[in-house]
Amino acid sequence: MDNNFRNMDLLPAYDKLRQAARHPYDLRMPEALNPQRLAGYIAHAGSYRLLYATQRVDDSTLELLRELAEQSGAVEQFKMMKRGAVMNRIEGFASENRRVLHTASRDIFSASPENPEAAGQAQCELDKLRNFLADLETGRLGNARGEMFTNLVNIGIGGSDLGPRAVYLALKPFSRPDRRVLFISNVDPDDCVAVLKDLDLSRTLVAVVSKSGATLETLTNEALAKKAFRGAGLDPARHFLAVTGENSPMNDPGRYLRSFYLFDYICGRYSTSSLVGGLLLSFAIGFDNFQKFLEGANRIDRAAEEPDLKRNLPLLLAMLGIWNRNFLNCETLAILPYSQALSRFVAHLQQCDMESNGKSINRQGGALAYHTGPVIWGEPGTNGQHSFYQALHQGTAVVPCEFIGFRHSQYREDLVVDRTSSQEKLVANLLAQAVGLATGAESRNPNRRFPGNRPGSILLAERLTPETMGELLAIYESKIAFQGFVWNINSFDQEGVQLGKVLADRLLGLVADGSIADPLGRAILKSAAFGDGE
Amino acid sequence: MDNNFRNMDLLPAYDKLRQAARHPYDLRMPEALNPQRLAGYIAHAGSYRLLYATQRVDDSTLELLRELAEQSGAVEQFKMMKRGAVMNRIEGFASENRRVLHTASRDIFSASPENPEAAGQAQCELDKLRNFLADLETGRLGNARGEMFTNLVNIGIGGSDLGPRAVYLALKPFSRPDRRVLFISNVDPDDCVAVLKDLDLSRTLVAVVSKSGATLETLTNEALAKKAFRGAGLDPARHFLAVTGENSPMNDPGRYLRSFYLFDYICGRYSTSSLVGGLLLSFAIGFDNFQKFLEGANRIDRAAEEPDLKRNLPLLLAMLGIWNRNFLNCETLAILPYSQALSRFVAHLQQCDMESNGKSINRQGGALAYHTGPVIWGEPGTNGQHSFYQALHQGTAVVPCEFIGFRHSQYREDLVVDRTSSQEKLVANLLAQAVGLATGAESRNPNRRFPGNRPGSILLAERLTPETMGELLAIYESKIAFQGFVWNINSFDQEGVQLGKVLADRLLGLVADGSIADPLGRAILKSAAFGDGE
Repeated sequence: MDNNFRNMDLLPAYDKLRQAARHPYDLRMPEALNPQRLAGYIAHAGSYRLLYATQRVDDSTLELLRELAEQSGAVEQFKMMKRGAVMNRIEGFASENRRVLHTASRDIFSASPENPEAAGQAQCELDKLRNFLADLETGRLGNARGEMFTNLVNIGIGGSDLGPRAVYLALKPFSRPDRRVLFISNVDPDDCVAVLKDLDLSRTLVAVVSKSGATLETLTNEALAKKAFRGAGLDPARHFLAVTGENSPMNDPGRYLRSFYLFDYICGRYSTSSLVGGLLLSFAIGFDNFQKFLEGANRIDRAAEEPDLKRNLPLLLAMLGIWNRNFLNCETLAILPYSQALSRFVAHLQQCDMESNGKSINRQGGALAYHTGPVIWGEPGTNGQHSFYQALHQGTAVVPCEFIGFRHSQYREDLVVDRTSSQEKLVANLLAQAVGLATGAESRNPNRRFPGNRPGSILLAERLTPETMGELLAIYESKIAFQGFVWNINSFDQEGVQLGKVLADRLLGLVADGSIADPLGRAILKSAAFGDGE
Repeated sequence: MDNNFRNMDLLPAYDKLRQAARHPYDLRMPEALNPQRLAGYIAHAGSYRLLYATQRVDDSTLELLRELAEQSGAVEQFKMMKRGAVMNRIEGFASENRRVLHTASRDIFSASPENPEAAGQAQCELDKLRNFLADLETGRLGNARGEMFTNLVNIGIGGSDLGPRAVYLALKPFSRPDRRVLFISNVDPDDCVAVLKDLDLSRTLVAVVSKSGATLETLTNEALAKKAFRGAGLDPARHFLAVTGENSPMNDPGRYLRSFYLFDYICGRYSTSSLVGGLLLSFAIGFDNFQKFLEGANRIDRAAEEPDLKRNLPLLLAMLGIWNRNFLNCETLAILPYSQALSRFVAHLQQCDMESNGKSINRQGGALAYHTGPVIWGEPGTNGQHSFYQALHQGTAVVPCEFIGFRHSQYREDLVVDRTSSQEKLVANLLAQAVGLATGAESRNPNRRFPGNRPGSILLAERLTPETMGELLAIYESKIAFQGFVWNINSFDQEGVQLGKVLADRLLGLVADGSIADPLGRAILKSAAFGDGE
């Protein structure tokens, strides 16, 4: 593998961008948002337009960002990734050493996929899924009384929960009225109890999702759920499905009705378009709608190969993010979907982005002298406007915003009140916020002054559907990968989660043993939650 | 009113704290978390303990923070607030000029309340509420067919949604099995349609909540909901309740079954313990449980008057936050409840804190030279551990964490797997994370190195109940108020939300008129979401 990846601050454009950042484009100037700029600063990908006139960039900044992207080889690395290069590694140190092929899980629409082996495996699992769904549909597969399954409970955490849950909620209007999906993730026993308590378990499937087959929370919740099934006189082996690695201890046909496979070249946080999302989504919205979702994602994967920055929407989103993070020193990024259906999409992106790019060393194991992934946070608009937007407008820290909106609602039921529809009000608010944050406003009353120059972008499409949801997911997945490539970090491992596991295991050993030999453990336990120790 | 409020950087302790921040307590030292420290750095309030040994403070830092709090008069201002001083104002400029008396909404357990007038008004509304609930219970108040109401839909946004929703979700195990509460907030028409679509409207009450009676989203959703009721052949006046100001246009008995009043001395984001939360919470969990919630909140309101920093938990939480924000320069704060029931509590705190303290001017209208409220974000643990904790441990920015946990689960249903229960696993993980972030860990593999020195606190109680939920809410409400007092800002207005409203109205005028005279508006609309303008 090419190991000439260089740190961002060694690329020639880096210093020029530092210079440029001393006088970034001033969005408060008269005519700062002139019609030419508004019409010109738009990029396209699939069904989406990215409006970025409200970012603090001008043509010369964009040219420097183009240079930086090119010097980093971001697009080339993206192509290498899709073809199956071992991008998940740290040169010279023990690391996962894996390929990164979530894009293969939707590269099933072409006669010549980028990585034929992985695309073939994806197709094989999709075929199993289609057969399984047909068996449910025809009644060949039902409960002990021969009834159809109407519920599916997904037991998974992190990547096996957040993305699938976000997309399920986003596509509920496309869901079959006779089917429902529920989620258990937290090791908190109340999570499992609350979900199962009022459910007709006899008509419920349970998908247990863990690539390793060893995730603490998931196995614990599986045990809790099986206890509930047995308590209701039901045989778990007739209700439980496994979504796991072929070599995992969970790959055991005796315990599961069906098993679907995950592959080590797909990280959890990028697994929504694999069977992790596929099983529950196609149960709910049908296999054809799930195919459309995959089509949308695949369309963006191809669009992200475009070498011209201004015509590559995900790359542009990535580079504008780097401008804000590294050159304008903004520590966080608010993602603000003006769509209630996307209520949990930001929680997914928080994982996908922060677990990928919350890193401090490069791909050669060296410490970085620049910042990497920002804190990702946000809530749907207009709700957020009545919550934290006060701080976005008048707080002391500048928070760049990525707005997401749609021209039409999902249900298409609306009402004109005061001459405009709710959907028009929703979109007008989105636009107004982006403009207001950018331009600011003067007043004699200091409390009514708005400093402005707070950057934002707007992602727009016609309507949130399976296809545009797949596109949106892939836009962010490729944005995150591009940023990792430019920062020269490994976006595909998560060693930072290990320490907590080790320490938790140590504490649990103390709790289980009753013998508290470790003084730190003893002191913590005594001072904390397990009573008075010994 | 006293107008000697001074900026934080003019207080004598400020410069000493800046000095101290050059060498903050090093949590990575051997014995940094020694038993004495772990046992000593604990504060109490009501049912909660705050463990703060994993903050980067030592006794001398705490002494300086005590001086800063004292010099700012934080506790004195808190008492003034509770007694009814006009704390919501900017000296010398047009401002809301209001008292701040959310504490009065639960100051109903004493013969001598701090502000008798406001406490009396609270009691009066609670009496109306109790009668209303009795009428529902006895069947005196039912639908047109004489059936009981089983659903209550809350239409409100911001403070009329986030806090009540968070507490309702937190207390679901205490909810009556025959009653359900649903929420509509977003102007996105899909929000309303999705909630009402499968509901038996004939057995549904709708609470329309807006202090001003003029909130765009709420009135629009009320209109959408009324249309649905009329479509189902139901008379909205027999189903809709008003929670509003006595002088608001919504105070109209002809249109509502009952009206409950809000007062201008309670900000939306502090209104969960008023009738805004009271109506839906007592519908769900019963009036007695709601009283216990109020009792918990009131207990903390009294505990927060304690002058000694180390014995005043909310004040200590506030000062540790100021230490991290202003002296250690941490821009964000993660709040991490290890309780799935608190899944939306952070969204409420995000509003309560950021809308209160996301300010840049002091109470005399002058610009501040220091930072105010951080970005508040977070998700429940252990879910977050499989999401963004990678960045907390190994990202380039330091994020202080406030962990919240409980010794017992709510449902008390659990299972021992591998020698420990789920609840024990949950709490062990919480403790392990706080310790791991603080101490870090060394490794020869740079990717397995943990820098440590990442500060955190732990809030612990026995179990999440109506009472401890009320306490937790009040701990944060008073923390936020204390921080505002020390920063010398007005935590009780929200002028920063006005610009967006003005701009949105302008755009909606253009949309409604079809005549797009304003060039900026035209360009935005053309380039954006409403098609091609003219």
